[in-house]
Amino acid sequence: MTKYVYDFAEGNKDMKDLLGGKGANLAEMTNMGLAVPPGFTITTEACLRYLKENRFPDGLEEEIERHLRGLEQAMGKRLGDADDPLLVSVRSGAKFSMPGMMDTVLNLGLNEDSLQGLAKQSDGDWRFAYDAYRRFIQMFGKIVMGVPGDAFEEALDRAKERKGPDAKDTDLDAEDLRALIGEFLSIYQEHTGQDFPAEPREQLRLAIEAVFKSWNGKRARDYRRQNKISDDLGTAVNVVAMVFGNRGMDSGTGVAFTRDPATGEKVPYGDYLPNAQGEDVVAGIRNTLHLSELKNLDPTSYEQLLQTMDTLERHYRDMCDVEVTIEKGRLWILQTRVGKRTAFAEWVMAYHMLEEGLIDADTALLRVDANRLEELFKRVVSSSVEAEPIARGLNASPGAATGKVVFSADEAQEWAGRGERVILVRRETTPDDYHGMVASQGILTSAGGTNSHAAVVARGEGIPAVCGADQIKIDLSARAFSANGITVREGEVVTIDGFTGNVFVGELPLEESVLERARSGDPAAREEKIWRAFQRLMAHADERRRLRVRANADTPEQSRNARARGAEGIGLCRTEHMFLGPERVAAVQQMIFAETADEEREALDALLPLQRNDFVQIFQAMDGLPVTVRLLDPPLHEFLPDLTSLSVEVAVAEARGESGPELEEKKRTLRKVRELHEANPMLGLRGVRLGIVKPGLYAMQVRAIVEAACEVKKSGGDPKVEIMIPLVATRAELEQMRQELEPVARDVLERERVELGHLEWGTMIEVPRAAVTAGEIAEVADFFSFGTNDLTQMGFGFSRDDIGKFVGMYEERKLVPANPFVTIDRAGVGRLMRIGCEEGRAANPNLHIGICGEHGGDPASVAFCHEIGLDYVSCSPFRVETARLAAGQAAVGTAESSTK
Amino acid sequence: MTKYVYDFAEGNKDMKDLLGGKGANLAEMTNMGLAVPPGFTITTEACLRYLKENRFPDGLEEEIERHLRGLEQAMGKRLGDADDPLLVSVRSGAKFSMPGMMDTVLNLGLNEDSLQGLAKQSDGDWRFAYDAYRRFIQMFGKIVMGVPGDAFEEALDRAKERKGPDAKDTDLDAEDLRALIGEFLSIYQEHTGQDFPAEPREQLRLAIEAVFKSWNGKRARDYRRQNKISDDLGTAVNVVAMVFGNRGMDSGTGVAFTRDPATGEKVPYGDYLPNAQGEDVVAGIRNTLHLSELKNLDPTSYEQLLQTMDTLERHYRDMCDVEVTIEKGRLWILQTRVGKRTAFAEWVMAYHMLEEGLIDADTALLRVDANRLEELFKRVVSSSVEAEPIARGLNASPGAATGKVVFSADEAQEWAGRGERVILVRRETTPDDYHGMVASQGILTSAGGTNSHAAVVARGEGIPAVCGADQIKIDLSARAFSANGITVREGEVVTIDGFTGNVFVGELPLEESVLERARSGDPAAREEKIWRAFQRLMAHADERRRLRVRANADTPEQSRNARARGAEGIGLCRTEHMFLGPERVAAVQQMIFAETADEEREALDALLPLQRNDFVQIFQAMDGLPVTVRLLDPPLHEFLPDLTSLSVEVAVAEARGESGPELEEKKRTLRKVRELHEANPMLGLRGVRLGIVKPGLYAMQVRAIVEAACEVKKSGGDPKVEIMIPLVATRAELEQMRQELEPVARDVLERERVELGHLEWGTMIEVPRAAVTAGEIAEVADFFSFGTNDLTQMGFGFSRDDIGKFVGMYEERKLVPANPFVTIDRAGVGRLMRIGCEEGRAANPNLHIGICGEHGGDPASVAFCHEIGLDYVSCSPFRVETARLAAGQAAVGTAESSTK
Repeated sequence: MTKYVYDFAEGNKDMKDLLGGKGANLAEMTNMGLAVPPGFTITTEACLRYLKENRFPDGLEEEIERHLRGLEQAMGKRLGDADDPLLVSVRSGAKFSMPGMMDTVLNLGLNEDSLQGLAKQSDGDWRFAYDAYRRFIQMFGKIVMGVPGDAFEEALDRAKERKGPDAKDTDLDAEDLRALIGEFLSIYQEHTGQDFPAEPREQLRLAIEAVFKSWNGKRARDYRRQNKISDDLGTAVNVVAMVFGNRGMDSGTGVAFTRDPATGEKVPYGDYLPNAQGEDVVAGIRNTLHLSELKNLDPTSYEQLLQTMDTLERHYRDMCDVEVTIEKGRLWILQTRVGKRTAFAEWVMAYHMLEEGLIDADTALLRVDANRLEELFKRVVSSSVEAEPIARGLNASPGAATGKVVFSADEAQEWAGRGERVILVRRETTPDDYHGMVASQGILTSAGGTNSHAAVVARGEGIPAVCGADQIKIDLSARAFSANGITVREGEVVTIDGFTGNVFVGELPLEESVLERARSGDPAAREEKIWRAFQRLMAHADERRRLRVRANADTPEQSRNARARGAEGIGLCRTEHMFLGPERVAAVQQMIFAETADEEREALDALLPLQRNDFVQIFQAMDGLPVTVRLLDPPLHEFLPDLTSLSVEVAVAEARGESGPELEEKKRTLRKVRELHEANPMLGLRGVRLGIVKPGLYAMQVRAIVEAACEVKKSGGDPKVEIMIPLVATRAELEQMRQELEPVARDVLERERVELGHLEWGTMIEVPRAAVTAGEIAEVADFFSFGTNDLTQMGFGFSRDDIGKFVGMYEERKLVPANPFVTIDRAGVGRLMRIGCEEGRAANPNLHIGICGEHGGDPASVAFCHEIGLDYVSCSPFRVETARLAAGQAAVGTAESSTK
Repeated sequence: MTKYVYDFAEGNKDMKDLLGGKGANLAEMTNMGLAVPPGFTITTEACLRYLKENRFPDGLEEEIERHLRGLEQAMGKRLGDADDPLLVSVRSGAKFSMPGMMDTVLNLGLNEDSLQGLAKQSDGDWRFAYDAYRRFIQMFGKIVMGVPGDAFEEALDRAKERKGPDAKDTDLDAEDLRALIGEFLSIYQEHTGQDFPAEPREQLRLAIEAVFKSWNGKRARDYRRQNKISDDLGTAVNVVAMVFGNRGMDSGTGVAFTRDPATGEKVPYGDYLPNAQGEDVVAGIRNTLHLSELKNLDPTSYEQLLQTMDTLERHYRDMCDVEVTIEKGRLWILQTRVGKRTAFAEWVMAYHMLEEGLIDADTALLRVDANRLEELFKRVVSSSVEAEPIARGLNASPGAATGKVVFSADEAQEWAGRGERVILVRRETTPDDYHGMVASQGILTSAGGTNSHAAVVARGEGIPAVCGADQIKIDLSARAFSANGITVREGEVVTIDGFTGNVFVGELPLEESVLERARSGDPAAREEKIWRAFQRLMAHADERRRLRVRANADTPEQSRNARARGAEGIGLCRTEHMFLGPERVAAVQQMIFAETADEEREALDALLPLQRNDFVQIFQAMDGLPVTVRLLDPPLHEFLPDLTSLSVEVAVAEARGESGPELEEKKRTLRKVRELHEANPMLGLRGVRLGIVKPGLYAMQVRAIVEAACEVKKSGGDPKVEIMIPLVATRAELEQMRQELEPVARDVLERERVELGHLEWGTMIEVPRAAVTAGEIAEVADFFSFGTNDLTQMGFGFSRDDIGKFVGMYEERKLVPANPFVTIDRAGVGRLMRIGCEEGRAANPNLHIGICGEHGGDPASVAFCHEIGLDYVSCSPFRVETARLAAGQAAVGTAESSTK
């Protein structure tokens, strides 16, 4: 027979799955001998059975009754007793703390009879007893039965109005409350169609059912989705003997942290409210006191609290928060848990606790969240500033930014090109805006959520963003937006705060983060604890990790930046960026339009020195470290004008009767664009297919790469070159490409009389077929690099550019495990990787394998890469530290951040 | 030590890998005691070593020498001997007969010395000896050394001219030939820069090397690619003692078949040429005699030949062809092999041999080529017609067709819509022409090869086509084409013959094939042997096959057609076709444009009865058999106008200053089209994603399907309904869709008070992720159907619409194993299928699994489906018999057609 109910004394803190977080910790504290009111926990298993069968599972009712009797005996009181009634609170408690669940019903057990007993036991304090009763009716009605909270609040307001202007709750006397109870019971009856349940056991049953059901409430489900918590956990229910913080000035309630959750410093921190129940703190009816003031109000309890907190922290070896109630000078601990903290504080705390010897270095490493590391490097709005935001949106991508407002991606790119700092303001962004987004300091949208295109790209690129600021109305024709009566025109300066979602007019002073300053060498910043914590824990991560970390860098500047952040090479140097820029695009178009081999060669010859120069600088920046250069990948038409726009242009010119050589030239271009146009360019003529159709292209790139390497080598450098062929689907593609390109490299080396110590040839594994035939391909490859962006696109059949129309719905309805473009889809894409990795290695034991999709900087994905045994991950330069940290955590064990 | 040379007595017919087809059969016949001239075979292994190392492998030279000496001893003659010289022929012989390889060098061993001996041995017939020598120089020069053949031919022509007008080869006397030899030797010297090799062993070495090298000649490689023969086989070389068919009128040469290769009848069939060497037959210098005339010329040899052929056929249990030479009344067999035959003859022969008891039914089944079955059903140009073609192209898709010429797909569709029979004439076709292609009787293109878009689609759809008829010049502005001086205008009738590639002006009488007539019930046709053969072997295939065969049919007519061909259900009923047609497109657009739920419902309500009526007729046509209906799959924008065209239209109208409600309407449409436009529609909002985004759509379809099934059931039918959700990538998609749609079906059934015996819910497996997570998906599916078109697109990252630009090069360079859209790519896409199948079944033992991609009608793919244990294949109606046959063959064993 399944056991569904546990007395606090029967559980412990490791039973969170069954007892929920709250129940497990109450049990733990009970067994530690701390002052926890007696009670019991109904398990998550009971909840799940209830939700499945839509009724209490067999035996549950009897078990509850048995534990209730035990509680009555322990307290020497009886539920509903007219002399000395037991009152209980009923509180939900899932494995993870979760807003949106039914929270707490206090004072359960009251009815007209037990009300008498409560008054008697509180020395005839009828005001207290009535107040407890009206609170109970209110909470039960609202939380358990779904009566609109406003109905009770309005009745309460009317009662206060009757008392006089500015009357407070506390001004209501026993008589007033007695009358209010009558009103509350009518409200209850009116909204539920039933009388308020007088029977305490009936009250309890209804409350427990309400907690069970709240697991599937919309807000709870939304929260779980947002926080990637499984729907299959269920919630536990805690039934606890009531203690009262509202029994006078020698009573009170508070929340305390064992360390400061904002700074991480080891100082007691918290709030206290005398003569109040917990809900009053939450409701913010009166201003709370700083915890330290309790020392004056009740030094004994204060001392006892500090001691309890110390005990808890030693026991949990982590910062805890506790909910306390003092009833007539007696301290009760109602709840504890490992406390939430800021990204900043988690580093400082982990470092301190390590220094204090409370935890070891591995534990300290697991205490910090790799997902939040990036935030610590972002600029913030200077704390000295007091400015009023003109609008507020979602904090979609962390960091503060200031710049001139522009309304289109093209303008953003153009303005930025001439050195302006710009904020791109759009209703929403689309993939067509990408070039403007990455040219901007920050992005502000008036529509779209935290998973909108703008938000996803901004986070991916590390650009601050505020999204869905819906007070902002954009008027494109006027080149202005307005918000709350203020109009901001193109070119005017705004500041956005991606930490808070605030939007300000004008340039607010921004501060570099301490870590960024310290990294740049600022000695003062290097004295700060956060930097010491960062240094210490990153060193441990580096010591522990088995994965190497490279960066995706296309320019010398990015390469230097990446190296400064600890990159151990470049895992992806995209060459398509080298084909952009006015002088290059002309040559690229010439190559595409070439009708003879000579024309094509001429165009390629023009590109060669430009490419070579780029490579020289990159090899220099990465001297001694491997640089993986990917040969040209995107469809050629990406270097050409858009088909529709050009068609319209030509048709309109013709309709207007224009003519002349310029139009003829445009028509020629249009013909070519039409010829190259593809229905699905992602699955068309790109990658190695380009290399096969235009063999001169890859040969030119290889020549440029190897010539650059020779130049660097001759000037004393140590270039390590890895040449990567993209989009390979068959072994023959790679084999034939190598047969064509290796002689090109050899020719250069012979001509230059240089020997390179490290010159390897490999391929992306980014087409599903390549993954499942990796064994064949590995026979002709020195290395693999998983291109998880494309592998995800083709694995799911999701075009990244197009899924905007449904991906929101997909995440909301959990049709995908998580956004597969952010975190590797283990079951599908991950399975393909695993096959590719295992079979590639089996066929070629010398094969080295990495990943260069954007997943390389996502901590959960890094953990997966560690698990399947990759040699390295490669990610954006600004994610290098995140990846190093995540790799260290993966090596140490399951990161806490992923134990949800 | 590897053995590289085998005497004929050392081999047998099963050693084709090592000895090549010719060598193995020569060995077999030698051991059967047939009159084969002595000789030996150099193995394919020697060839491969030679090609790899670019020299004779160690020991080969010595082995050849040893076998040569053996041959000399056996013949009692010596190579190069001035008294009684041994002459040999050197012939290539790969495992598969292969044009483009170096063929034969006769009379090897001749030089000025042995010439004397040859003359002596031929009783002083100097004319014979000189003729043998000049032939040898000519063949050796041309074939071994690459001297242009014309050079010799011209010298020969000059010699004949000198003899007088109309002089023939035979008019040249010994003296003329002696002089010609001098000329030939000079030609040889001039072109090769060397003297003609006098040393017979040197001649032999060069000839052997030439055979080896010819394996990698361009024509040989092209042939192998075309016929899917591996490049890794190599060729053997046969060295055989010469016998002479040109020793007078008691000598001769011929080719004989044991049965008629065109009709399959058991009659001796072949050609004979008295006083000639084999090459003369090939060169067509004189007209050959029908084999039966040999009976009069040389009854003994004739009788002996008939006996030999009988022996061979009994031995090989198959039709053989033999190459024979009669030297002075003595019959020699120079070669035999299983003979090629027409698609028609292979059925008749297999049937006869089965009836004769020569082979069993399984063997008979394997004797016919499923790939060619379709041809037998095609119409042909009536054999009574003698017409002159105006052009000739490639026979790209079998069958003859006649109709009016149109030059665009839209016209083809429009003309066909009003009942005209049309031939679509284009330079080349593109995917945009599809609708016009399938509306046409036949397709004629002036460019493009047998793998061009037109050819592939035509074969896929069973439409006759002639492609690459490059004499045809199309003048679109004049709406006409011309060929060889004849102009054909739009609307004029032409006839194309997809069997021969011929194009005729005017309507030629066409004949239905015997099989088609027989199937339609024509009693005369049902008496013909081919029909009896077809009936007998198909019955055996049906008895043997384990795979069931369904059809892909979208209309009642296709369903009836499919059932007549033996389809056991519908594996894919696409519903998108039901959304076309003027009345429907309007409702579909209304649904797409709907801005409120009401508007959307209204549009869907309009579509419902139309859909239902379609389904009623399909269920009736397939009464008692399962019908798998796929819910809407393609991107919505496929039902809308093209973005670029509409943009141009609107922009031009605006540039012209037009205005009015019509333009406004267009602009409204354009906005929506732009909004729905996708960068990669193949990976965008389609399939189940549509069902999720527009839930009313699938619900409407399910209602229509189930209502139709109820109607059919009520009128006494037995509809078996399988509802298929396309493009599923995750288990949750299918699960949630079922949760939404099953209640819709239940509601209809309850309302109609009908119970359906068979109502299943399943999914396409067409996204790679679905294949690798099939275990999860199978838990919520009743069936899987592999959508191998999409699985191939996404597995390779090949968009079918776009690969035209490189797929030709890919096939040519063997970058893909075969066209993966025609034959399942076993290693990649096949692997995904295997995983999907195994893991799906493991998770759900009741799961039934089929395939509905176009591969379902490709025999090699059917064999693969059998191998991995699918339950059924589903293919185009006109491929049903092909699939049944292939399934039977797969069950029996490896089909001969796939043993290449």
